[in-house]
Amino acid sequence: MTHYLDNINGPADLKTLDRSQLPALADEIRQALITKVGVTGGHMGPNLGVVEATIAMHYVFDSPKDKFIWDVSHQSYTHKILTGRKQAFLDPAHYHDLSGYTSPQESEHDHFVVGHTGTSISMAVGMAKGRDLCGRTENVIAFIGDGSLSEGEALEGLDNAGEMTTNLIIIVNDNEMSIAPNHGGIYKGLAELRATNGASEHNLFRDFGLDYRYVEDGNDANALIDALVEVKDIDHPVVVHIHTDKGHGLERVNATREAKESGHWMLPQSVQDAMVEAGPVEDYASVSRDYLLNKMKRDRRVVVLSAGTPGNGGFGPKEREQAGDQFVDVGIAEQHAVAAISGIAKAGGKPVYEVTSTFLQRAYDQLQQDLALQGTAATIIAAGFGDAIGPGDNTHSNIFDIAMTNTIPGLTGLAPATKEEYLAMLDWSIDHAGRPVVIAEPGTLTRETDLALTPEEPVAAPFTDGDLKYRTIVKGAKVAILALGNFLPLGLKVRETLAQSGIGATVIDPRVYSDLDVAALGVLKDDHDVVVTLEDGALVGGFGERIAAYYGSSDMKVLTYGAHKELTDREPTETLYARYRLNPEQIVQDVLEVLR
Amino acid sequence: MTHYLDNINGPADLKTLDRSQLPALADEIRQALITKVGVTGGHMGPNLGVVEATIAMHYVFDSPKDKFIWDVSHQSYTHKILTGRKQAFLDPAHYHDLSGYTSPQESEHDHFVVGHTGTSISMAVGMAKGRDLCGRTENVIAFIGDGSLSEGEALEGLDNAGEMTTNLIIIVNDNEMSIAPNHGGIYKGLAELRATNGASEHNLFRDFGLDYRYVEDGNDANALIDALVEVKDIDHPVVVHIHTDKGHGLERVNATREAKESGHWMLPQSVQDAMVEAGPVEDYASVSRDYLLNKMKRDRRVVVLSAGTPGNGGFGPKEREQAGDQFVDVGIAEQHAVAAISGIAKAGGKPVYEVTSTFLQRAYDQLQQDLALQGTAATIIAAGFGDAIGPGDNTHSNIFDIAMTNTIPGLTGLAPATKEEYLAMLDWSIDHAGRPVVIAEPGTLTRETDLALTPEEPVAAPFTDGDLKYRTIVKGAKVAILALGNFLPLGLKVRETLAQSGIGATVIDPRVYSDLDVAALGVLKDDHDVVVTLEDGALVGGFGERIAAYYGSSDMKVLTYGAHKELTDREPTETLYARYRLNPEQIVQDVLEVLR
Repeated sequence: MTHYLDNINGPADLKTLDRSQLPALADEIRQALITKVGVTGGHMGPNLGVVEATIAMHYVFDSPKDKFIWDVSHQSYTHKILTGRKQAFLDPAHYHDLSGYTSPQESEHDHFVVGHTGTSISMAVGMAKGRDLCGRTENVIAFIGDGSLSEGEALEGLDNAGEMTTNLIIIVNDNEMSIAPNHGGIYKGLAELRATNGASEHNLFRDFGLDYRYVEDGNDANALIDALVEVKDIDHPVVVHIHTDKGHGLERVNATREAKESGHWMLPQSVQDAMVEAGPVEDYASVSRDYLLNKMKRDRRVVVLSAGTPGNGGFGPKEREQAGDQFVDVGIAEQHAVAAISGIAKAGGKPVYEVTSTFLQRAYDQLQQDLALQGTAATIIAAGFGDAIGPGDNTHSNIFDIAMTNTIPGLTGLAPATKEEYLAMLDWSIDHAGRPVVIAEPGTLTRETDLALTPEEPVAAPFTDGDLKYRTIVKGAKVAILALGNFLPLGLKVRETLAQSGIGATVIDPRVYSDLDVAALGVLKDDHDVVVTLEDGALVGGFGERIAAYYGSSDMKVLTYGAHKELTDREPTETLYARYRLNPEQIVQDVLEVLR
Repeated sequence: MTHYLDNINGPADLKTLDRSQLPALADEIRQALITKVGVTGGHMGPNLGVVEATIAMHYVFDSPKDKFIWDVSHQSYTHKILTGRKQAFLDPAHYHDLSGYTSPQESEHDHFVVGHTGTSISMAVGMAKGRDLCGRTENVIAFIGDGSLSEGEALEGLDNAGEMTTNLIIIVNDNEMSIAPNHGGIYKGLAELRATNGASEHNLFRDFGLDYRYVEDGNDANALIDALVEVKDIDHPVVVHIHTDKGHGLERVNATREAKESGHWMLPQSVQDAMVEAGPVEDYASVSRDYLLNKMKRDRRVVVLSAGTPGNGGFGPKEREQAGDQFVDVGIAEQHAVAAISGIAKAGGKPVYEVTSTFLQRAYDQLQQDLALQGTAATIIAAGFGDAIGPGDNTHSNIFDIAMTNTIPGLTGLAPATKEEYLAMLDWSIDHAGRPVVIAEPGTLTRETDLALTPEEPVAAPFTDGDLKYRTIVKGAKVAILALGNFLPLGLKVRETLAQSGIGATVIDPRVYSDLDVAALGVLKDDHDVVVTLEDGALVGGFGERIAAYYGSSDMKVLTYGAHKELTDREPTETLYARYRLNPEQIVQDVLEVLR
């Protein structure tokens, strides 16, 4: 039933509806979201919570003249539906037409490609300033919530907004949640504001210098419209604090906090069903979780930190309870997390920070200044780092981690190739390294036994300081393949393919990307003509370029393989591998060309 | 007169004094600071403001058991004096013994090497957590002020502290200033707290979930002691908000806001005198300032941003007034600044963000996600980037900017070699580029005429899109020197030295470091055997490694020169150049070795 939705092809059509008809429209949109996201997966809870708010925004303001800037933009589905893109939510044949975030390429109603957290206020402050410089008068509206307020960038933006004297509207979508439950002192203040219907004198937003309105029922389109009409064309910055219900209208993602957490982002229903049927599968999230829970039990000083994404590391509500005060979710605050682990280590604790690699980018300076310069013994597990080249969004690329962390003096960077190496490195880092260590969690769960080593070749031993050297998997001649981390299996395949041309190549598992093993590299000069580097990440600033520079003054030829300098958007892995020549046949072709 | 100070060799000696004697001690310390910093230069105003606070802290707490964590640590001089390091402040022969920041290598009373802003609360949160995990009970005290509170990392830390339930003391040193006047809405709130003697219900810290105390006279050691005694061994986090007087006791850095701004950090008196005598000298700060003021006058849409360090770009109080609403100081908030310029550009403005290169590291993620991914037309002038290898502190290294920005798809990186190129690039970036551009402000003010080009060789023309290619300065053969930015003069010297061995080298001014000019590089293969890359920055992830990888499969030999992977601390430039083989003789020696 899409009675009202049928006639809405843009915000102008929405404005022809009577206000009394909006709840029915909201129901239609909500049903469309439930059906579509159930099939394709995506951000279920956040979008169900803001259907009415989005309707109200488009009812009151005039997008695209008035500018909506969606924080993270994972909650922009209703906005897409109302701005000429409903087909992608109603017609299964078009379910995959759109990205999961705002995109100026899709619509003039979208202004930024966003996926990281806490950026909307700053971008809106900028757009308001640009508007004023150009002498225009449109409304600029930032929409932020879902725990984003704890992000330093958002708080910086709020602070700067607080001294502006021009139109700027910040809608704070308070659903009492982040991805997991909210963390941070400010959320106590929001609770007090909710409890007092916005009347409390204890008002964070006012203390940042901002005007303030409160809407208790953020799922009542008409209450929202009343509030927005009041602030439209306002001549100074104002916060409109709306209290919404995450997952509104779908009990299985709404009934409890746990349901809200697991319903924040969902896999397609078919994938969920298949996973239930298949039963538990070992992956790096479960490997890390089991290892860390066990480690914490045996050593009180071990503490695991997350910055708002505990589930990514396998720490759901049950595991967090099990870990007790040895697990800390600091909220979405990556900079703080890195400085905090440095402090924990300085005071004698053994911190392990689990982070999704793309978000670690937020803490580049802290990695260098707060952590590596201090030499404090902290461990960072970067998920997504190990298998970076893949079909993800351009907003969530993980390919830059080698380039980012490789530059930092004093930070040891490890890229394990097998499960056994990964666990041995974790043990070494937590108990023995005495320095900051980043470990790239590999994607593929390769086991030592999968390497098909001959019996006399050793399975990886417990990792020690002395192991900060390359590990030779197969000793050959003429061609040496340095296959980093997740790409060791690829390296072995290249060797197989080369064997067909009569070349018995050396295969090396470098393990360490932060330091060159110059002894190992030097020896290769004796009986090798070509070095091939394979890395599951960006070439620029990566592992291979450094190897190429090392051999720059020698006769060694170096071929480097990895991702090009680009942010790819939902391209299949095979397409990317073909473009980057990351297939054994392509690599061998290049090697033979150089040897000719 | 150092009557009291004579007997103080550590905090225990301080505690033997009667409270009534502390003001006299403060006077002695203040006189020592004024004398010493007058000679050596350093952070004058901040240190004069916190003499009494530091005395009170050491009088009440038991350092090093209790932990003091100084934000930025530029205000830790009195702390150094009271913890066994007074000789460096009293004896001119030892004036240069210590670093300007805290340093665990200097003293067990220092816990971190710090120089960037806003880190203390997060580090203290971490130390408190580590303490608890280890079952100890010492006090952990963060000391933060001077505008640092607007930094996202500090606000993240405050937010996380707000939900702790253990001892943590955050002293907020409110001197009503940043380096320049404070910016941001939170400072209105601090003003209200000051006006109400801390009694206002509008209390940012309480809204972050923290307990709170106020001390109106932050330069009264005994008032401070009373407050600190009250919070010592407290069982939950508390903010002690103290109102101090920046530059207290020295009128020329205290009388006005302008004096406080210029007195924040001072050159040695002898250097100041010499500068006054020499009169105005053209440098890149003045070149940038004059260019931008003129540009703003002619184009309303041009707007210059700073994140709390306007003076570094030549924008003192007079220039800020002249620029009016076309200059924005967002406060110390680098992440926000980068997102905001993206917003300004999106709305039609022409933003120019002036930033000291080491602080740009705070915004690595924003450069990629908020700016480059959006393709918005913003200009970043990075000061210190161009002449990165030098005698600075390990906390303020600028050598990582190529490596950091080079990785970012869609971000054009320019390294001009001459003043004329710099200005042409600025014009191009602001008016024509239509994309985000980072320009490395060179250090040495080389002019086109200094290049000693033969008459038929062109002086750099206005920069255009077509100029995103290398510029050949001298065409030779056998050896090609790619001398980036500030190192073009070095490249020309290498050529001169090579000429003595009968080699007429090619010298190239690459200008663009973000993209390879593969046409120019390809041509070199025809009649060159060696390529030398020179960059005033880190080798790892830098310009040269990429060149080496480009030539990896060819017969071209590549020698890369730049900084090693290390954070150097106040080493003379010549020492560094010698270690990095950045002298013409060393480079030529290497080239001849390879050619042999």
